[in-house]
Amino acid sequence: MMKYSFKNDYSELAHPDVLAALAAVGDIQFEGYGLDEYTEKAARLIVKKISKPSATVHFIGGGTAANLVTISSVLRPHEAIIAPQSGHISAHETGAIEATGHKVCTVKGENGKLSVAEIEEVLKSHHDEHMVKPKMVFVSQSTEVGSIYSKAELTAISACCRENDLYLHLDGARLGTAMHSPKSDMNYQELADLVDTFYIGGTKNGALCGEAIVICNEDLTTDFRYHLKQKGGLLAKGATLGIQFLALFENQLYERLATNANAMALRLAKGFEKHGYGFLSEPQTNQIFPVLPLAMAEKLSQQYGFYQWQPISDEQMALRFVTSWATRKEVVDEFVEDLSVAK
Amino acid sequence: MMKYSFKNDYSELAHPDVLAALAAVGDIQFEGYGLDEYTEKAARLIVKKISKPSATVHFIGGGTAANLVTISSVLRPHEAIIAPQSGHISAHETGAIEATGHKVCTVKGENGKLSVAEIEEVLKSHHDEHMVKPKMVFVSQSTEVGSIYSKAELTAISACCRENDLYLHLDGARLGTAMHSPKSDMNYQELADLVDTFYIGGTKNGALCGEAIVICNEDLTTDFRYHLKQKGGLLAKGATLGIQFLALFENQLYERLATNANAMALRLAKGFEKHGYGFLSEPQTNQIFPVLPLAMAEKLSQQYGFYQWQPISDEQMALRFVTSWATRKEVVDEFVEDLSVAK
Amino acid sequence: MMKYSFKNDYSELAHPDVLAALAAVGDIQFEGYGLDEYTEKAARLIVKKISKPSATVHFIGGGTAANLVTISSVLRPHEAIIAPQSGHISAHETGAIEATGHKVCTVKGENGKLSVAEIEEVLKSHHDEHMVKPKMVFVSQSTEVGSIYSKAELTAISACCRENDLYLHLDGARLGTAMHSPKSDMNYQELADLVDTFYIGGTKNGALCGEAIVICNEDLTTDFRYHLKQKGGLLAKGATLGIQFLALFENQLYERLATNANAMALRLAKGFEKHGYGFLSEPQTNQIFPVLPLAMAEKLSQQYGFYQWQPISDEQMALRFVTSWATRKEVVDEFVEDLSVAK
Amino acid sequence: MMKYSFKNDYSELAHPDVLAALAAVGDIQFEGYGLDEYTEKAARLIVKKISKPSATVHFIGGGTAANLVTISSVLRPHEAIIAPQSGHISAHETGAIEATGHKVCTVKGENGKLSVAEIEEVLKSHHDEHMVKPKMVFVSQSTEVGSIYSKAELTAISACCRENDLYLHLDGARLGTAMHSPKSDMNYQELADLVDTFYIGGTKNGALCGEAIVICNEDLTTDFRYHLKQKGGLLAKGATLGIQFLALFENQLYERLATNANAMALRLAKGFEKHGYGFLSEPQTNQIFPVLPLAMAEKLSQQYGFYQWQPISDEQMALRFVTSWATRKEVVDEFVEDLSVAK
Repeated sequence: MMKYSFKNDYSELAHPDVLAALAAVGDIQFEGYGLDEYTEKAARLIVKKISKPSATVHFIGGGTAANLVTISSVLRPHEAIIAPQSGHISAHETGAIEATGHKVCTVKGENGKLSVAEIEEVLKSHHDEHMVKPKMVFVSQSTEVGSIYSKAELTAISACCRENDLYLHLDGARLGTAMHSPKSDMNYQELADLVDTFYIGGTKNGALCGEAIVICNEDLTTDFRYHLKQKGGLLAKGATLGIQFLALFENQLYERLATNANAMALRLAKGFEKHGYGFLSEPQTNQIFPVLPLAMAEKLSQQYGFYQWQPISDEQMALRFVTSWATRKEVVDEFVEDLSVAK
Repeated sequence: MMKYSFKNDYSELAHPDVLAALAAVGDIQFEGYGLDEYTEKAARLIVKKISKPSATVHFIGGGTAANLVTISSVLRPHEAIIAPQSGHISAHETGAIEATGHKVCTVKGENGKLSVAEIEEVLKSHHDEHMVKPKMVFVSQSTEVGSIYSKAELTAISACCRENDLYLHLDGARLGTAMHSPKSDMNYQELADLVDTFYIGGTKNGALCGEAIVICNEDLTTDFRYHLKQKGGLLAKGATLGIQFLALFENQLYERLATNANAMALRLAKGFEKHGYGFLSEPQTNQIFPVLPLAMAEKLSQQYGFYQWQPISDEQMALRFVTSWATRKEVVDEFVEDLSVAK
Repeated sequence: MMKYSFKNDYSELAHPDVLAALAAVGDIQFEGYGLDEYTEKAARLIVKKISKPSATVHFIGGGTAANLVTISSVLRPHEAIIAPQSGHISAHETGAIEATGHKVCTVKGENGKLSVAEIEEVLKSHHDEHMVKPKMVFVSQSTEVGSIYSKAELTAISACCRENDLYLHLDGARLGTAMHSPKSDMNYQELADLVDTFYIGGTKNGALCGEAIVICNEDLTTDFRYHLKQKGGLLAKGATLGIQFLALFENQLYERLATNANAMALRLAKGFEKHGYGFLSEPQTNQIFPVLPLAMAEKLSQQYGFYQWQPISDEQMALRFVTSWATRKEVVDEFVEDLSVAK
Repeated sequence: MMKYSFKNDYSELAHPDVLAALAAVGDIQFEGYGLDEYTEKAARLIVKKISKPSATVHFIGGGTAANLVTISSVLRPHEAIIAPQSGHISAHETGAIEATGHKVCTVKGENGKLSVAEIEEVLKSHHDEHMVKPKMVFVSQSTEVGSIYSKAELTAISACCRENDLYLHLDGARLGTAMHSPKSDMNYQELADLVDTFYIGGTKNGALCGEAIVICNEDLTTDFRYHLKQKGGLLAKGATLGIQFLALFENQLYERLATNANAMALRLAKGFEKHGYGFLSEPQTNQIFPVLPLAMAEKLSQQYGFYQWQPISDEQMALRFVTSWATRKEVVDEFVEDLSVAK
């Protein structure tokens, strides 16, 4: 019997406060297409959070949509975006960016992050009209493998972008766990100052659905709602998203949920360590990659859900464990006990 | 002070049963991306509703997305879709279909509906490779102006499509009000037999968000989830949609809500008639178009929301009133009284 | 036996001077991709012709390519182009513009031309993000039906565009016959001052292939060669086009060829008139539309190629006759004689 | 003073026989859009050359256009093409394939060629709807670095494609030098049997412009002319291309020109060898990559055009020399002498 799934952070539906906020609306009538007061209030809260009065905020149903609408609204037809191989747009969005006509110039990256050197390498090799023109850079925070860019790293990438007339887009599907990780050395305002566009993920941090696209660079705001609509991202009941984000940002719920996910991952990590297991990479947020004997992984998989990530040797396997806003301490502790038994 | 808005049918958030169904899930863990049991059960209910075991059902956040994903999954690059001028894809989706590369061949239509003669006219004028190749026909049920295709009309269009190797797509953003209108002479199974693809609108009939795409033609099912994902339509928490549709179709809630919207429109229409006002077109579903003196329309607009649709003369104006699943009898009756006062 | 085809103006291969210019190059080596001296010289000649030193010129193989590269290089994804129904991009380019993602907003037009009123009508009905944003206007000179915009007409359209922040693109597949028509009241410089982009058609005026795209609005020049390349329009042997345009513009060949086409059409028109036949519209360039008894049209079609354009009555038919740079006086005179016999 | 450029094989305009064939047409009238007798005859010659009566042939102006029209006509929106990093579509077509909506899955390749193992690797890592679906494989013959696939290699790739339901497209911009290389072990028929689509390059083998797209797989022929037209590839004067290909294939001109290019490259290679220089890779066609001291390369570059390709060490540089259909023995011999002097 399956006790708990650590497969991802979107297995549980939504935090009760989010659902309660939706239920509280009752039969009030509101404006359609995100022009309602809930949505406007949620947008204002986010603008305040990042201390950037000139920023604009738009809500959309999911992460792939957030990326494709934002990126395609910015690039001209011959322009391309640079992303690490592990980036969501490179690997796991079914060619969504290419479907809007743009090449993704992929670089290897390391531990889910790309480097200034890699950006410069792409620029150097794209020098005339026989090649696409790189015009934007894509980073994720936290990344697909749970790592986070330090303030110094993101500052360097941002500086490289500005020097080279590139826009910087940050995929924040898991921004909460990044911002509220004990390893984080950046606040929301600092992050917003470094990027041109980013989105704050709701789906993976307690919402039913929804991401908040934030446009920090004023040059990129014109007509954005046209792009949202054209790509199918403008919900008639936009309030469905606005109300949820209001609930997430009104009482630090967003922070509390991300903090729980991180804390549970850390607790889990300590459990692995206690039993003498190491990690593929340092645990930083709510995705951790312990290395276990393959046989043990298989035994554990009868009761717990997780992915086999990468073979380390014939007998050792790196596994991916993901905790969520909903993961409870008791579940983690039970797992750690089962870990000791399975040994 | 505004008493009520008859501007549209997406002003109220969601029916309490829908919200209750979401709340009832609790902290159960489910599979992501619409592979959960709720979604599967909702899909089975819909398949049963249309008595078409070979049909497949996919849920998506909104109507523009439903249309663009479905249509672009079917057409090859040089193929086009025929639609009436008033069709949502022609007029109100910001070129969403063109953004996927396809021309919309618009015809005039009448009362929101296109005719076999118009389809044939397009086919006749598109005869070689210097023009796009019409390959699909777009109809809405109910239409943008509240009218519905009769069984005979839709049967004729469907026959024309099959004769001419055209697919038929039906936009059902307001399918509920069409199917459950007293004027309807078709059931779900009959409708599903006539089209290749259609969608059942949740947003405008009591859901927070969500539409159910139904693929009736088995030739068109292959790889459909790739298209959903690529266009940003595959929600990580697909259950958010599945749970809502389960609530809508489990206890005839969908039927009850549409029936309420229609009944309230009819009640409103009778009120107008009682006071001697006529209509731009016969009221059939939850959108009605009474013709009033302009001065009176302006007086009423201080307390009620509605659109001025089309001038009839210097002094007469056709107005659009829309009722919803949430419109209450008391509100309608109060309006009718106010109508008599405003005279 | 077929004596001559008046079906179109691209039936004869190329003027001997054009072919001679190609042959004269011998085995000289030149730079690829249009960076050779021939191409640069041809571009300079055209810039001089329009007296617009800031304009840039690019050569491309054909008219559909010229339109699609130019238009898609200018528009952002949500922007659209306004064109008359008869416009080449509306009717006869297989959805080439839509294939780059943009809607063509078609208006009826009259005699192949659109009006300021029609542009304003489109602007008025496209007012928010639920509709595409019109951003460019498309005209042809001469039009698909042989008519030409007068200087006053084009000036009015240009003023309307500038007032409303719209770009103006002119399809000049048959620019020669327009500029060198006795009915023309505009010179190259005046035309270039009124538009943002246009192209000068070579294919239909004596070249093997090739059109010269002229970008008059400096804001639109950036990175244009990227668009040419991406859409497959940048020939490795760009000189193939440059040499031809050099031949066309060095010795007024372009003017002489267009003048011949117009003169032959006029001669033909006079022949029709002499025998008492009228026209669907006033002959202005090398396409004329005489109205003949259907029986006579059918008799003539045994010896001459032409299109039946539009029935006027059960017995009368408007026909389309097109003359070219290569049509000879003797052929026209023989036809006029045959016309008298066929009566 | 510059004696000769070995920079590429499109520096000289066109073979005299090609120009003579164009001039010989005179003022004959022909059907437009490639429906003329010249084009049909050229197509028949090519079909005969590959002994594949069911194949269809279409002519188009250039290589990028040939690739993008063919590939985008085959793939559905979510499908992708696998290509080596050095492939023209990956590296040097300004994202032309992505601009039609499709991802290019690039693999490293070796010596310009991809391997069955690399194709299988891509297939293995693309297993569900979160990733594009690889559906086509791209090879060049000869490749961007002058190498050629042996019959065994191409047979293995073709078998892998058929096993995995992938189409195989071959870019033959330099097919002539591949087929008529002394290193080739395949004839036209054998090649055509292994691929689904390919094109025969005219531009780089003596034509003014033009490539012949050959569709070997009958499933892929439907409506191909629509795609040609929509992408701007259908020339009004299609005969311009047909006549050239007729000239190239009527008297083995195509073979003779390619053979000359190869022979000149071989003669050049022997010259380098005679003076003791080696190569980055084995010379196989008309592109060779001798390794020379950097100082010497710089001295030679004052009289000869060629590219510095890749540094081998601080002092040694691999250079790219390309010969063409027009390169003369005398020029090569003079270079080899100059090589000895420059030493």
